[in-house]
This record gives sequence, C-alpha cells and structure tokens, in this order.
Amino acid sequence: MASWVYGFERGRADGAASMSDLLGGKGANLAEMARLGLPVPPGFTITTAVCTWFYANGSSYPNGLIGEVRSGIAGIEAATGRVFGGAERPLLVSVRSGSRASMPGMLDTVLDLGLNDESVEALAREHGDEVFALDSYRRFIQMYADVVLGVDHAVFEEILDDYKDNAGLMYDTDLSGEDLRSIVDTFKRTVREETDSEFPQDPQLQLWGAISAVLNSWMNARAIVYRKLHQIPEDWGTAVNVQAMVFGNMGGESATGVAFTRDPSTGENRLFGEFLLKAQGEDVVSGLRTPQYLTEAARRSAGSELPSLEELMPEAFAEFQMICARLERHFQDMQDVEFTIERGKLWMLQTRTGKRSAEAAMRIAVDMAEEGLISTDMAIQRIDPGSLEQLLHPTLDENAPREVIAVGLPASPGGASGRIVFSAEEAEAVAHEGHPVILVRTETSPEDIHGMHAAKGVLTTRGGMTSHAAVVARGMGKPCVSGAAQLKADPKAGTLTCRGHVLKAGDFITIDGTSGQIMVGVVPMREPEMSDAFVRLMAWADEVRRMKVRANAETPAEVRVARAFGAEGIGLCRTEHMFFDEGRVLAMREMILADNEDGRRAALAKLLPMQRKDFTEIFEIMSGQPVTIRLLDPPFHEFLPKNPEEADAVAKALDIEPERFADRLRALREYNPMLGHRGCRLLISHPEIVEMQIRAIFEAAFIAARSTGAPVNPEIMIPLIVTKGELEYLKARIEETAEAVMAEIGKRLSYQVGTMIELPRACLAAQEIAEVAEFFSFGTNDLTQTTFGISRDDAASFLPGYEAKGILPIDPFQTIDRRGVGELMEIGVLRGRRSRPDIKLGICGEQGGNPGSIAFCEQLKLDYVSCSPFRVPIARLAAAQATLAERGS
Amino acid sequence: MASWVYGFERGRADGAASMSDLLGGKGANLAEMARLGLPVPPGFTITTAVCTWFYANGSSYPNGLIGEVRSGIAGIEAATGRVFGGAERPLLVSVRSGSRASMPGMLDTVLDLGLNDESVEALAREHGDEVFALDSYRRFIQMYADVVLGVDHAVFEEILDDYKDNAGLMYDTDLSGEDLRSIVDTFKRTVREETDSEFPQDPQLQLWGAISAVLNSWMNARAIVYRKLHQIPEDWGTAVNVQAMVFGNMGGESATGVAFTRDPSTGENRLFGEFLLKAQGEDVVSGLRTPQYLTEAARRSAGSELPSLEELMPEAFAEFQMICARLERHFQDMQDVEFTIERGKLWMLQTRTGKRSAEAAMRIAVDMAEEGLISTDMAIQRIDPGSLEQLLHPTLDENAPREVIAVGLPASPGGASGRIVFSAEEAEAVAHEGHPVILVRTETSPEDIHGMHAAKGVLTTRGGMTSHAAVVARGMGKPCVSGAAQLKADPKAGTLTCRGHVLKAGDFITIDGTSGQIMVGVVPMREPEMSDAFVRLMAWADEVRRMKVRANAETPAEVRVARAFGAEGIGLCRTEHMFFDEGRVLAMREMILADNEDGRRAALAKLLPMQRKDFTEIFEIMSGQPVTIRLLDPPFHEFLPKNPEEADAVAKALDIEPERFADRLRALREYNPMLGHRGCRLLISHPEIVEMQIRAIFEAAFIAARSTGAPVNPEIMIPLIVTKGELEYLKARIEETAEAVMAEIGKRLSYQVGTMIELPRACLAAQEIAEVAEFFSFGTNDLTQTTFGISRDDAASFLPGYEAKGILPIDPFQTIDRRGVGELMEIGVLRGRRSRPDIKLGICGEQGGNPGSIAFCEQLKLDYVSCSPFRVPIARLAAAQATLAERGS
Repeated sequence: MASWVYGFERGRADGAASMSDLLGGKGANLAEMARLGLPVPPGFTITTAVCTWFYANGSSYPNGLIGEVRSGIAGIEAATGRVFGGAERPLLVSVRSGSRASMPGMLDTVLDLGLNDESVEALAREHGDEVFALDSYRRFIQMYADVVLGVDHAVFEEILDDYKDNAGLMYDTDLSGEDLRSIVDTFKRTVREETDSEFPQDPQLQLWGAISAVLNSWMNARAIVYRKLHQIPEDWGTAVNVQAMVFGNMGGESATGVAFTRDPSTGENRLFGEFLLKAQGEDVVSGLRTPQYLTEAARRSAGSELPSLEELMPEAFAEFQMICARLERHFQDMQDVEFTIERGKLWMLQTRTGKRSAEAAMRIAVDMAEEGLISTDMAIQRIDPGSLEQLLHPTLDENAPREVIAVGLPASPGGASGRIVFSAEEAEAVAHEGHPVILVRTETSPEDIHGMHAAKGVLTTRGGMTSHAAVVARGMGKPCVSGAAQLKADPKAGTLTCRGHVLKAGDFITIDGTSGQIMVGVVPMREPEMSDAFVRLMAWADEVRRMKVRANAETPAEVRVARAFGAEGIGLCRTEHMFFDEGRVLAMREMILADNEDGRRAALAKLLPMQRKDFTEIFEIMSGQPVTIRLLDPPFHEFLPKNPEEADAVAKALDIEPERFADRLRALREYNPMLGHRGCRLLISHPEIVEMQIRAIFEAAFIAARSTGAPVNPEIMIPLIVTKGELEYLKARIEETAEAVMAEIGKRLSYQVGTMIELPRACLAAQEIAEVAEFFSFGTNDLTQTTFGISRDDAASFLPGYEAKGILPIDPFQTIDRRGVGELMEIGVLRGRRSRPDIKLGICGEQGGNPGSIAFCEQLKLDYVSCSPFRVPIARLAAAQATLAERGS
Repeated sequence: MASWVYGFERGRADGAASMSDLLGGKGANLAEMARLGLPVPPGFTITTAVCTWFYANGSSYPNGLIGEVRSGIAGIEAATGRVFGGAERPLLVSVRSGSRASMPGMLDTVLDLGLNDESVEALAREHGDEVFALDSYRRFIQMYADVVLGVDHAVFEEILDDYKDNAGLMYDTDLSGEDLRSIVDTFKRTVREETDSEFPQDPQLQLWGAISAVLNSWMNARAIVYRKLHQIPEDWGTAVNVQAMVFGNMGGESATGVAFTRDPSTGENRLFGEFLLKAQGEDVVSGLRTPQYLTEAARRSAGSELPSLEELMPEAFAEFQMICARLERHFQDMQDVEFTIERGKLWMLQTRTGKRSAEAAMRIAVDMAEEGLISTDMAIQRIDPGSLEQLLHPTLDENAPREVIAVGLPASPGGASGRIVFSAEEAEAVAHEGHPVILVRTETSPEDIHGMHAAKGVLTTRGGMTSHAAVVARGMGKPCVSGAAQLKADPKAGTLTCRGHVLKAGDFITIDGTSGQIMVGVVPMREPEMSDAFVRLMAWADEVRRMKVRANAETPAEVRVARAFGAEGIGLCRTEHMFFDEGRVLAMREMILADNEDGRRAALAKLLPMQRKDFTEIFEIMSGQPVTIRLLDPPFHEFLPKNPEEADAVAKALDIEPERFADRLRALREYNPMLGHRGCRLLISHPEIVEMQIRAIFEAAFIAARSTGAPVNPEIMIPLIVTKGELEYLKARIEETAEAVMAEIGKRLSYQVGTMIELPRACLAAQEIAEVAEFFSFGTNDLTQTTFGISRDDAASFLPGYEAKGILPIDPFQTIDRRGVGELMEIGVLRGRRSRPDIKLGICGEQGGNPGSIAFCEQLKLDYVSCSPFRVPIARLAAAQATLAERGS
C-alpha cells in the first residue's frame, strides 16, 4: 500500500470510508464505493498528510510523492486503457479537493485535465463528437486559468457571452465545433496575454499545477474564515482526489446530477434530486439552465414539462435507484450523491451523509429504524436535541428576507409578528379586536402579565435573560427578546426608534426569540407540528433514558403543557410567580409593607386561599407525579412598583401615606439584590411566610388526593441555603406547621424537605447540609452567577465580547461550565451522598434543558433534570442520548 | 487517691494546677498552692465529675461519694486538730463552687458551716471572743438560709438594719455579744417561720445541704445565661470545695483581702489590692466599708488616711509579698489572689490568672520576658492581637456613661465626638473654625472626600461595610459608622432624627466605629499611645514570624502610616481611589462619558500625569519595598453622580447635553454591580485604560528609582479573573505598553503580572491561571461574597439575625470561613503551586488583618498578608503567633 497516495477502481481500493481523516470525506467514500463494486471512475487520493507536510515544509512535496502519483496515473491508465496526454484515447482526469469536514465551495477543483491541442483532437475522433471535445477543452482552459494561473474566470465568461451575442445564440449547447474552436483560440490568447506565457500543453505540468493549486486553496482567505466559523482545525489539511473524467456532456445520452436518497426537507423516503443533460458537475448548481427532476412523481407534482430521468433513461435510472438504496444500507444514513451518465453509462462521483431539516432528520431516523436499517438506539443518537426547538415553537421562515433593525437577547425562543403596543391594557384591547400584537416595554412587571398573555410576543429594551419578561415568557412558551438597548421606546409619543427607523404604535414588527433579532414588518412563519415520527422517537428515548425529566412550571397552564410534553413531575414550582398575578400582588404588597408580624399575618391570611387553590390545581394536573415546591425566593422589593406613579397608586390602594411607602421602598432597596435578603434568608426573617405556604401546600395536598384518588407527597424546597443551620431552622418551622395541619385534618401524608444547591458554599458544605436535606436540586443559574461572579442580567455589556475574543469558549449560562460549576456540582453530589447515600438529586437551572449539560448530569448520576415545559422533549431526548453515551453503545 | 474527692493541706495534695477540668480552677490552684507548701487551710475538692453524674442521674450522688466526703472531713479534722460539729474546738468549713471557667458570682457559696447552738459557744470559749463567734453564727444562718433553704437574704438584712437603727448603732462591728445573741434568735425564728422547720443543727445535714445547693446552682437561671453568653459548655459542671474556715473577722489582728500581683490597669510591677480589718471574704467587694490599701506606696499615692497592711501587719505583709512573687514565678503570669489573716497568721484562699487591660497585658508580658520569667515567644503568645485595636485608635472610655440612640455597622474602628454637619463643605468650614465635626451623610461619594478629611468621624444612614464611606474611612484610619438605618438625616431641615430624638446641625454626637453605636453628646475618650513595651513586643514578633505583612493603601498619607506601622510593602494599591479626588473625578467622568475610544484616550491623557505622580510618590515612600498595584476595578457608574442636581452640574462642566448624560447613566446602570462590568471585564472592553495605567506605573517606577536609588519592581495585579484567557489577553496588553515605555526610556526593569483570586471559579481554575499569573492575591471580600452569595452591603438586614439565632457562628466577613471560603483558598493554593511551584501568594481581603484568618494563612503557607494600615501591627503580632502555633511551640 502506498504511503502518500491511495488508489481505487471499481471492485478494489487502498482506502475505506473509515479513513476520512487521512483521505478526506470525498476520497474515503470514493474508496468505499469502489470496494462495494459500484461504478466509480478509477483514480487515487493524495492524502491530507501531504497537505500538512506541504505547509510544514515551505510548500514543497514529501519524498516519494512524485513517484507515487506517477504510479497512480499509471493505474488509471491501466484501468481505463487510456494514456495520460496520449495522442490516441487520451486520459483526462479531474483534480478535486476533499477535506475531513465538508467545506462546500471553499477549496478548488479542476476538471478535464490532460486536454491540450493534440489530445482534444484525439478525443473528438474517438467519440466522433467535435463539439463535446472542444467544449471540454474550453471548460478546462477556463477553469485551469482561473484556479491555477490566477486569471479571473469572469474574463472568459465575457468572451463566451460576447461570442454568443454576436452569433445570436442562446445556450452554450447551441455552439458549433467551429464556434468552439474560435472560442478556444481566444481563450488561449487571453491566457497568453494575462500570464505572459502559453497555456501549458504538458499534462504532467497541468497535473502538478492543479495539485499545487488545490493544496494552496486550503489557505485562501475564504477557507480560513470558514474554518474559524466552523471550528475546523487548520492542521487537518485537505486531500487531493485525481480521478478519470467521465463526461456528462458527451452527447444526448449523457447527463450529470445530484440527489438525496430521501427528501431532505420532509424526510420522506423518496429519491430527491435533479440532473441536466449534456452537462458537467458545476452546471447543475450554477442555475444557468433549469434542471430536470429525477423521478416521474417529482416531475408531475412540480408540474414540470421537462422529462424526468426515469422517463428518459429508465435503465440508468433503475441502476441509480438501486445504488442509492445500497448506499443507504451501507452507510446507514441518508446520502447526498453526485453522479454522471456518460452515453447511458452511470458513474458515481461522490457520496456523503446528506444535510437535512430538523423535521426530516426526525422522520429519516425513525423510518430507518422501522425499516431495520438502524437500531432505535442509533435513531435516538441521530437527532440533535437542540433541533427540536424548531419543531416545538413557531419559527421564522429561514428563507424569507428579514429587515433586521436591532438585536437584543434571545430570551424566549420562537418567532412572532404583530402590531406594536406599549402597554398591557393596549395589548389586551388590540388583541381583543383580533389583531396580533407584540408588547413593547422598557421592562415588564407583574402588572403586565395579562398583557403578555394577550400578546404574541414580548420585546423589552432593558433587562436580561433572567428578567421578569424573560422568565415569564419562557414559562408561557412565548417568544421574547429582552434588553434590546439600541431601541428607544417612547410610550407617550407612541414611538419605537432605532437608528433612524421610527416605528409607531400599530405598526407591524417581528421578533425572533431564538436569535434576538427584531425586524420591521411581518416575516413569514413556520408553524410547529408534532409528527408521528416525533412521537415514536420520544417513546424510544423514554425507554432508554435513566434520568427522569421534570418541568419548571407554576401556573396551571404551564403545568398542563409540561405534562403534555411528557414531564414526569414538577422539579421547580416557583411560588412567587403565583403572586405576580394582578389580583394577588396587592395582598403580597400589603404583607411586605406591614409594619409588624401581625400585619404580615393578616395579609398572608388573604394569600392562603389563593395559594391553596393554585397548589390544588397543580397537584390535580400532575395527579400522583412528584411536585417540588420552592418556598418564596425573591427579595421583597421585586414585588413593589418601581416608578413613582405606580407607587402612588399602590399607596392609595393600600391606604398608606405615600411618605411611609417611600420610606419602606427605600429601606428595601438593595445594592446587589441577587446576593441580598431573599430565599431562606427572607424565610428565616419572616417564618410566618413559611407557615402560610406550608399550610397551603398541605391543605391542597389533601384536597387533591381526595379529588384524584392519587396520594400527593409534596417535596418542599428551600432556596439559597449555605449552611446546615439555615436548613435546620426552617425544617423545624415546616414540621411544626405540617404537623398542625395534619392534626387538624386527622390524616397524614409523607413529604420531603430539601434544598436548592445554588451557591458555591452549599456545594462545599453539602455533607452537613445533606444531614438535614432529603433532596438536592442544583440551581445552576445562581451557581453559575456566583461561581463566575457574573450577573446574568448585567453580562450583556461584556460577555458577547468575551465570546468574540475567544476568552470564554462556551456560554456558561447555556451549558454547564465543567471546570468550575461542574466541579462544584461534583463535590456537592459526592458529599451529599456521603451523609445520605440515597439522597434524591436533580437540577432545575436553565441548563437542565441543555443537551451538553444533561450529558454531564448523567455522568454525575443525577436522578432527574428539570427544565422549562417547552424544553421537556429536548431533555427527554438528550437524557436518552446521555444514557447511551454512558453505556458506551 | 480518691476518685470523687481530692484532698489537700499545706505541703501535700491529691490534685494539681493541671487538673482544672476535674477540680475546677479554684480547686486545682488550691491543690497547687498546698503542694508548694503555701499556707492553705486544709480541705478537699468534690470533682466536676460528681456534678455531671448528679445531673445525669436525677440529682443523686454517685456511690462512694458519701464515704469519701466523710474521709475528707476526717482529713481536715486531723490537720486542724478540730472536730466537725464538736462541742470543743469545733471545725467550721466553707463550701464553695469552682468551675473550669471563671463564672464570677454566678454560683453559690456557704461560709462558717458547722456552727450550731452548741458549737458557737465552744467557738466563743475557745477564742475568748463571744462577739466573733456570734457574728459568725448570724452570718452562717443568713447565708445558709438564703443559699440552701431559699429564704431571701434581704429579710435578714432588714432585721439587722432594724436592730441597729433601734439600738442607734452604725456598723456591724459595733454590735455587742448581747445584741448578736438577740439577732441570732430572731434569724432562727425567721427561718422557722419561712421554712416551717428549725434551722438545721446537725453539721452533716448542713454540709450535704450546702453541697447540694452548690451543685444545683450550676443550673440556676443566671448561670445558664452566663454560660450561653460565654460559650461555656453545660457538661463541664462545677466542683465543690470544702475547706477549713479561717477567720478574717477574729478580732483586731484579723483581716481579709484581694490583690493582683501587678497593676491590672497599667501592668506596672507592683502589688495592687485592698483589705478590710475584721471582715470575711465577701465584705471586701460588698462596698459597705471602705477598703484599705495593701502597700504604703499605694496608700500615699491615693492620699488615704487609713493605714496600709504594710504598716499595720508588716510580717504578714512581707510573707504575702513573698508568696505573690512565688506564685508569679510558679504560674508564670500575673495572679489575682484572695487571702485572710487570722490573728496575724496569713492564709491563702485562692489564686488565679488575673484579668488585665490591653495596655497592662502588653507591659506585663514584656516585663516578665525581660525579667526572665517567661520566654519572648510566650510573651508574644500572651497578647490578644485584637486588643491592639484599642492601643492604636482613640477609644471611648469604657466606664463613661453612654446615651446610645442608634446602632449602625462598625465600619471603621475608634471613637470620635464632634458637631453634626451634613455636607463636606460644612465639615470643612466648621472644622476650620476649630470645632471637631462628625460628617453625617446618607451615603458618601467621591465629592465628600475633603469633608471626610476635615471630620473626626463619619456617619452614614445607608451603605454597608464596603460602602464608599467605610472603605475610605478605614483607609484614613478615621472612625466610621455606616448604614445606621434607624436614623433619618434631613440635610435641608438640618436635622438628624431617631426615635423621638431630634438632633440639629451643630449638636454634639459621638460615634463608636468599633461597636457601631451612636450617642448623644460627648463621651470621654482615651487616646492611643505606643508604649515601649509595644515597640519591644513587636520587634520580637517580627523576628519570629514567617509571613510578611503588607498594607492596603493608595494615598501617600496612608502609605506613610502603613510604613510607620511596619508594613513591608503595599499588598493592594487600589488605583481607582486615586480618581475619587475632586480634581480628578471630572477627567475620569469625561473618560466614562466619551462616545468612543478616541474620546476615552483624550480623557485618559489628562489622567496619566496624575496617576504617574501618585505612583511616583508611593514608590518613593516605600523605597525599594514591593508595591502591588491593582488596575482599575469598579464599574464605571460608581464614578458618576447619582442625584439629578449633581448630574446636571457634571453635564454642564463636561459640556454634554443633559439628555445624553442621562442616557449614558441609564446605559451604565446595573442590577448587581458587584457581579457586573468591572475588574478585568472593564479592562478587556477598554484596553486603553490598561495602557494609560501601565504607562503611569512604569514611568513612575523609573522616576522613583532615580530619586531614591532603590530599584522599583512593580507588581501589577488584575482584578476579577475567572479564566486563563482573560489574563492572557490583558498580560499581552500590559507587556506591549511596558516594552514601549522601556524602549522610550532606554532602560529596563523587572516586573510581575499577577491576579486577584477573588471568585470561586478562579480558585478552581488556579492551575491554568497560574500558567500566566506570577502571583496570586486572595481577595477574600469578594470571594466570601460570592461563595456565600451574600452582598456585604445588603447583609445588614439578615446577618445579625443569623448570628443571634446561632445559624452562623462567625461573621465570615471578619474571619475566613474555613469550611467554604477556606477550602476554595486551599484549592487555589494547591493548584496554583502545581503549575508554578514558587508562585508568590498573599491575601488582601479585609480578613488579612484578622488574627484567626492570619493563622489560617500561615497554615496555607502564604507569603504575606496585607491589611489596612492601622491593622498592620495586629497582623504582625498575629502572624508571629501563627508561626509559633505552627511550630507547635
């Protein structure tokens, strides 16, 4: 076996599909097809190691390469019975790049190499087709001059166009031999003028020129940019494939085409592709001529009048169909192939795994598993869980034009269009008239919730990924773009301004919560659908996965969505969200503004029935599934209005002097609310809140158990714990009230008390904390914020710059940072289990819905992940993949 | 040796001083004195194990105790030649408590036990002194009835007072035998009436009653409270000491007294104490009679007319003096002793280590070391480093009355009194008139610095321990109380209101920055002084300690103080503090408000000469000592005015439209500034700041090196690093500018680039970070804030409650929390050394000046600690103690 050059011909090959690192994707798969006995033109691949050597050694070639290439050519000559540069039966070759990763269009290619003034005549004679031979020659000159000699190909196109114009001809195919001869002469003269030397006639010279050009193209500007964008290492290098030419432009029985073995948009199991008669490779994608359909069915459904390949060349078509099926079986995946038919004879030029839409990927994986082509485990592993996002939310049509006027934070995924409104009331009113609306606010507050409900999407000019708008919108599954600071909303003037654009209330805008883009007007949308394939795949995933998947949800609507999406419990029910409702926030405020415990108790008594009703409903919907309820977490000031007018209104409603209200507001203000008086700290200061919440939970549990017949075993979760002492103190309060309620009702139920692990110290002190806590739920939002010392709401001013400068390779708020946050979680898990081996462990930070993070949770052997309802399917799939990855299958 | 009872008499003892756990402090030292052959009345100690057994077994006694007590009494009888309850030469005993830790006055005592109607006559006969015998009996009845029988002692005092009034007598000593007989009868009748039984006549019954009473007193309410306050474990228990009575009330040659072997206030080496003639123990401290001085010198200097013991009983005094010297030598410390002289014969009743003032402690330790009584190492270990605080700051007189109207945070230690002023301008004006002022502000800002300079102290009604006021005041060494939220300052009305108190501008207040108290009027102050002893002790400490001590300082004044207090370098020079100066903050603001890099560069060019001048001065003062300069750390908005009027003034001064100013202010606002765009994040966004600062540092280094002749090797420190990437990026910028300046000047200097380690992730990623960083400085303020998720500025609303509820035993902002923060530091040290074994390690958080934390830093083998200038001596001493502790010496 050669060391720098790997040969192949139908029936045998030095390489194989597994060797794509060395041979590049194209070369490896050509070798594989040759081994399978498929009709591949003979050829050889110069390995990527040559490219590496080339760049490491001042653009020179390794010893032995020249000899091996000569042998390679000799092999092709033997296989074809032709002679490279021969005056009879000349051998023409293609020289193509082919790297390990697909880099479409970035690297160079030369076709028809080996033609010169002599061999072109031999070619014409041999095939009795002067037009074909001369057409090939002018193509070769044009391509070679462009790629190897650096003459702009536009020069040649101009000559060709001018000629056709002068001759009154429409298509290239209309050119006669005489025309072409004249064009070839002009081409050659142009080369002489542009490069000060004759177009090279020696095929060996031509070959090495092309090899060198392909290797050099690895370092062209566009390739460097592309690699950076796609994180392709520079040292991978490209291979060079030299292969006998076959001609799709050799008369009427010839064609060239591309195909997907299944529909890449829908995944339907039908051949999908196009071809051109009398054409070479690049013609199909150039768009100059209208391609024809491969199958009759496709032609008919498209209403095309041009005949299909199936009709025109039934035998070649049948063979191609068989080969496609064979390739799918062999590669166990949908293929994207290139082929050429030369005078009725089919040749395969390339095969590779085909790109496809999320929807198609799903259908193909499921169909192939059901066809027995792949295992269900493999089907599960085939799907990028992140791609489900577009299957679950309405998304903007990728192909539709967008007039982007600003970019904010992608706070809640999905796209939405609607009329601009500047208040919740307006949102309700305009929506009531039947118009879609986008609610535009500086920031949202609890008063805006009904407006958010009415709107198709929410846009804020301030606030981060954890702002009120972002959190509530994600819960509702509504698109939201937050913190679009370039925009200036002026509700009084009814205008939204950005860099000269002035939009008015009532104008249409579109937001893309997946990318953060804001666009003028309406951008066409794709509606989500849960296909049969989706349902089947999720069922397989559910069978495989070890971890449970729960949802973060608190309103009955969200809880219902979560259950519908397959959540097996609620991992985080944030009770404070229940207080943001317009009707309730007043009682909450009364509690906060009370002067003393008695006042707080009176207000809490008003909240008790509301909370009890909420919990009852949630328990009923989840009927028997576990529900983890987190006690009140945010600082008091989050419930109070920030602007003076609202503050006055509230003061009036609560019959408090405005001055005292202002005093209280001032007293509650905090420098760093995230690190302030919240979570267990607030509960320890005001145990009467704990009493009310525990009473509501337990009373609701008994009501729901009776109505559903399924016992309810609440999991009560305390936020922001850093010491065992905090948890002990609160657990004692919880037990007191729990016992009191159970005694009043005369029944018992079992329940658990656990804690969020969301601060570094909680991880470090997990052993002591687990002496009291019956479960841990990792709150990776806050844990990431404190481990990094980065406030997510304030990070927009520098984190994007970090990513651009390569300082932080991943966004730790999307994917768990394993070095820091991950190690703390590991410590927490290890120490928690040390004092309580069977402690229940979960995650409820937003990373709980992120596939990379879910894989890490599987490594830690957590019991469950919990995420927003709309990410539940993603988590189910990712958890299954994580189980399979850990199994090593 | 007995198991429950340990006997002692002059010359021999079952116990020893080392056995205070078992025998209590009093019992162990009585045994020790007996062993030394000192005149100790014979007796025995019932061990603390009996007390433990007593409470574990329903107030019963262990087997064998009764027999051992009987043997104990027999031993005393043998030693004294007396008989317990005897009709001739009756033996009287005292029954005293004595626990491991001193609990003064908390537990019970019975004296003169063994007296009854018969033995009192024998006692009178024996000593030929009826008055003495009857006086002892009435004392015994009174005390026993109170302690054992539960009859309020006030009842008896009333009887005695009534009797004296009726008889027209003044003092107890005026009572005749007849008077006392009558009083004894009345006392016994009262006991009968109050308890329904006769006063017990059987000495055995009396003895067990007293033993039981002493044991029971361990659980009386005041003892329980005291133990809780002083963290004395309940299971320690008390011992019971039974000892032959000696009588200070037996006629003219008798006396009883207390003494310190050295002056407990000043530490002077002279006997210090008082005595009363014809008195028993408690009389001296009761204050009913005026005690007399022990020494002639003391009597004379006090101008007392009552004769001294030295004069009255020269022999007993000489023996006492000798014994005191002996005890000091033996116990190697100043002693607090009790003694009685019975008819000219000296008896020692107690010795223990004497309490003393901070000043005295220093002097005694140093004197004793110089006298050869203890080693200098021991002298070092004797001093509580925290006690130096009162030697370095003016402090409020502890004994002066205080009218506390509010309590804020103890933000900067020391006390100060002055007239209330509400603005910096007023502060300067009033101070200029020669009045001391206290600057009262809601919060301070850079504009207030000159007012803070003019004031004696600073009081703010908002802001925490790391607020501007707190940080600046600590740097200045000025007392500050911050966040006194109960106070309401109304500068317009010129009033400061708190719970009814209305103080006006110009009224005097006093603040105590050590406790956080705020008082009306002027409280007397003690001025600090650095005694000879202090200087000598610090010199010894400096010889011993391994770690260097640096200071956190940035103004020339602070740096000078630091050097004077013995700082061996600057560990943290916070460059931003240099921008808070009135003249400079405008240029800083211009930089911040600039629209683009050019604008920022123009403003930075104005700041460059100022920074260069600052650095030059600091390098010159520290001449050759290392200086660590931290690049800009706080977020931009900290430099901008918060209130609208100031904002308008600044906008005008900088010629910016107010609207654009407001926009910029809004854009810079952050939700959680501590976790926001600051530190290295800001420097990465605006590398032109780094350029300016590095240029200033290097130019200054060359200037200072020339003027002082000592080379300057700056240590450049980057704040808030969490990844290696951040540091790499900035180190490259630093090197660029450094090379540029060195090339311009044509000289080179060596410098280091290092990082703060102040976020959990930095500790975890220390190995990678140390590949770039040449030193680490642990910023334990921020590390504690993020590890706990607690903002120090917002913690006042809940942290005090945590301490009260016992949830957090220590304040982690004072002393490093070893469980969490400490473990992260350990990880940081270990990993940092893994990639750079000789990495320089220090600490510059405020805990760097805390003795407990310094001990921990020694365990981690850090190279230095850095703290505020006024804590440098504390750190020097604590570091020496830590070295000794680690040596195990």
